[in-house]
Amino acid sequence: MDSKLYIYNTLTRKKELFKPINPPFVGLYACGPTVYGDAHLGHARQAVTFDVLFRFLSFLGYKVRYIRNITDVGHLESDADEGEDKIQKKARIEKLEPMEVVQYYMNRYHENMRQLNVLPPSIEPRATGHIIEQQQLIKKIIDAGYAYIVNGSVYFDVMKYDADHHYGKLSGRKIDDLLSNTRALEGQSEKKNPLDFALWKKADPAHIMHWPSEWSEGYPGWHVECSAMSTKYLGVEFDIHGGGMDLLFPHHECEIAQSVAGYGKDSVRYWMHNNMITINGQKMGRSLGNFITLDQLFAGNHEILEQSYDPMVVRLFILQAHYRSTLDFSNESLQASEKGLKRFIQAAEKLGKIQASGHSTLDPSTLGKKCLDAMNDDLNTPVLLAHLFEATKWINAISAGQETITTNDLDGLKKIFSSYLSAVLGISLTGQNKTGDNLAEELIRSILNLRTEAKNKQDFALADRIRNELNKLGITIKDGKDGVEWEI
Amino acid sequence: MDSKLYIYNTLTRKKELFKPINPPFVGLYACGPTVYGDAHLGHARQAVTFDVLFRFLSFLGYKVRYIRNITDVGHLESDADEGEDKIQKKARIEKLEPMEVVQYYMNRYHENMRQLNVLPPSIEPRATGHIIEQQQLIKKIIDAGYAYIVNGSVYFDVMKYDADHHYGKLSGRKIDDLLSNTRALEGQSEKKNPLDFALWKKADPAHIMHWPSEWSEGYPGWHVECSAMSTKYLGVEFDIHGGGMDLLFPHHECEIAQSVAGYGKDSVRYWMHNNMITINGQKMGRSLGNFITLDQLFAGNHEILEQSYDPMVVRLFILQAHYRSTLDFSNESLQASEKGLKRFIQAAEKLGKIQASGHSTLDPSTLGKKCLDAMNDDLNTPVLLAHLFEATKWINAISAGQETITTNDLDGLKKIFSSYLSAVLGISLTGQNKTGDNLAEELIRSILNLRTEAKNKQDFALADRIRNELNKLGITIKDGKDGVEWEI
Repeated sequence: MDSKLYIYNTLTRKKELFKPINPPFVGLYACGPTVYGDAHLGHARQAVTFDVLFRFLSFLGYKVRYIRNITDVGHLESDADEGEDKIQKKARIEKLEPMEVVQYYMNRYHENMRQLNVLPPSIEPRATGHIIEQQQLIKKIIDAGYAYIVNGSVYFDVMKYDADHHYGKLSGRKIDDLLSNTRALEGQSEKKNPLDFALWKKADPAHIMHWPSEWSEGYPGWHVECSAMSTKYLGVEFDIHGGGMDLLFPHHECEIAQSVAGYGKDSVRYWMHNNMITINGQKMGRSLGNFITLDQLFAGNHEILEQSYDPMVVRLFILQAHYRSTLDFSNESLQASEKGLKRFIQAAEKLGKIQASGHSTLDPSTLGKKCLDAMNDDLNTPVLLAHLFEATKWINAISAGQETITTNDLDGLKKIFSSYLSAVLGISLTGQNKTGDNLAEELIRSILNLRTEAKNKQDFALADRIRNELNKLGITIKDGKDGVEWEI
Repeated sequence: MDSKLYIYNTLTRKKELFKPINPPFVGLYACGPTVYGDAHLGHARQAVTFDVLFRFLSFLGYKVRYIRNITDVGHLESDADEGEDKIQKKARIEKLEPMEVVQYYMNRYHENMRQLNVLPPSIEPRATGHIIEQQQLIKKIIDAGYAYIVNGSVYFDVMKYDADHHYGKLSGRKIDDLLSNTRALEGQSEKKNPLDFALWKKADPAHIMHWPSEWSEGYPGWHVECSAMSTKYLGVEFDIHGGGMDLLFPHHECEIAQSVAGYGKDSVRYWMHNNMITINGQKMGRSLGNFITLDQLFAGNHEILEQSYDPMVVRLFILQAHYRSTLDFSNESLQASEKGLKRFIQAAEKLGKIQASGHSTLDPSTLGKKCLDAMNDDLNTPVLLAHLFEATKWINAISAGQETITTNDLDGLKKIFSSYLSAVLGISLTGQNKTGDNLAEELIRSILNLRTEAKNKQDFALADRIRNELNKLGITIKDGKDGVEWEI
């Protein structure tokens, strides 16, 4: 596996050649959602970004174990270990058991991911399912001297850690700056220092979610779940950890500190962060009234939206920007992506009908190389998409008789479409985003080819037989002057 | 809520009026799958049975919290606490992390449930996610004197329990009969008595899945997960516990013993068990070659199957027998259900077009009453379906002008359809439960039929052509003596 994949490592702030620890195996961890509300565009961008990484690594031949967690406990309203648990609060308001809230929003998240053609991860661990593993890591951190116990709660000692190691190496933040920007809040008096963060919190009487521990009946801090679950399934050292840029500090900074303190080493080789989404140039937020959930987006059900947008349009829109650039949502840009998707759909239809000739006036192998180079360059999906749009122009030109192509090169062109557009970018061209869709579509094309051949051989009985078989499956076909069209 | 629902309680062996502990709330627990292989007809029957109960209780106005678990640890190959963990064994064979096996089959199970229109439960807890809760219950049982520790493993003391309470009250089995039928197996010497069962097993070095405990680094026994998770989410006493009849002994018998020993009381008010499925009169089993998975059934991809069956046909087939009767699979009976589904679809189409008149010659309100009575009589779905088929006759008669109906009664008739057929029985008439996968599989079947026809006509060129087309799409086909098999 002679990979030429370069990945921008947030830790070193440069693009690095990707070298897995144990090739052909790759361990990939990405932070998943806290399931107390519907997923929005930000969730979609993060999920699609690491889905494309998962797909591309698999395409390169790596055997990828991809872990994406579900946060179902410990994520408090404020980053300063204050406020109510987000899930418990929702449960209180809705008069439900917290795990009913979790199940409900997790199911909806999965449905959104299915619509966006995001593959399920290899393992989707839940924080409440790994309380023991979190406690084991906390014990290691205490034993190493980097955590202290106050009134049944356990806090990570940031100052002690920073004296021995370097707190802030991922985010580039400096302890002194952080301290001067932190107000000591009421109720934080348990902490030696306001930068310290909770590893275990003693549950107050109103807290429904709690488990026994040697420190108290309580619940884990938010940061510790990812450190415990990633290393449980990927080993103490693994290849890639991803997440949104909003998680870089404090969440990922704290993960590094926990690993170094508890395991004596950095767990992660490559840290990857996708950038944020803005809405018409503004930060997205509930208070700004521009908070659009994916369901609203797919249904056109929000005052900002001029229309509904197909999940594949949204996926294409996300991939038309590089994952490290900010991505601005606007109706215009989504509508542009909608046109782009249509171009791909039309090109794929034409591609199925192209007749090969004895000579190629175009060179798909060069194009394939360019596609690979784009992805190898830190997943440059906008450049890859530009090449694929170039391919649609070729297809149009061949279709119009302005260019010609041999059977071999035609197969090459088809392979570029199926490999890069479908397998790597995960763009499904049927608009129905179901697994097996692509295969069904290709099967229909194959069957229609057989039918065309039968007609050419005057075997109309077979041609009709094929039409009937397809009709039985709910597929209608229409013979036009440009070939056969079909509809499910 | 003046319910007249009668439920057959396996514990008392009679139909009892259903009285929830805290109306309008109902706590319902049903055993879910051990996720180490694809779901088959038996899984479908159990899931559909308790889905209909969940739907009917909700229809009656109850607020149901429905828990259906996922068993992802502790289910050993033999009921006598011997053999390998089923999931670990699969993981070893497939060279995967056990939780990858769990995730893979859990996703497939969820997809099957979606196809069968089985609603997701309110909470779907996993055994590995509740190790602490299981340990807490085990401690209670030890403290109560009904369990003993040997070499780091904890066993339930059945003889001690039976002396104080009554082991066998659910299954009606007698200790003496059980003992005379039990051989003391090698390696069971840790147990005082062969009827004792493991609550916690010390992990041997080859066992990958293990957690710390005060007894040993080990893993929970299978039976304890359901007792721990049901009571965590439904309280120490709850309304209904369901499962397949194959789980009655020892699984549910052991659950009762654990609750009585640990909590001092029976947790469950009503025990419900669905009966088994036979295949052409035979027990279903891998060794008998009649083990049909749901995917195979939906795709028609098994030598026993004459065709593929839509998930809704399978659901209707299941509901055409009472859940406490055995249900025999045969192509004829499935084909009969297919015709039945078609009758409902046609009737629903006609129903939408019926013109009301000034006078009714039929009485839907009486019919509605009969539907309710059928469900109240221990979920008598075959009787309910007979009434609904009667309704299709009415609809045909009205449509043909042989009978007339007023606007009010027409609404009543529509309501019977939407309430009982759609909401309670969960029969969807839109055909939208087909996934792309299914379509792809049906397309493959269609193509293979064409190929068989071509071969029968000695058109081997076409037959080869079809084989090549499928190969190009990554589908290999194999001609066996019982027909064609294929693999993607």
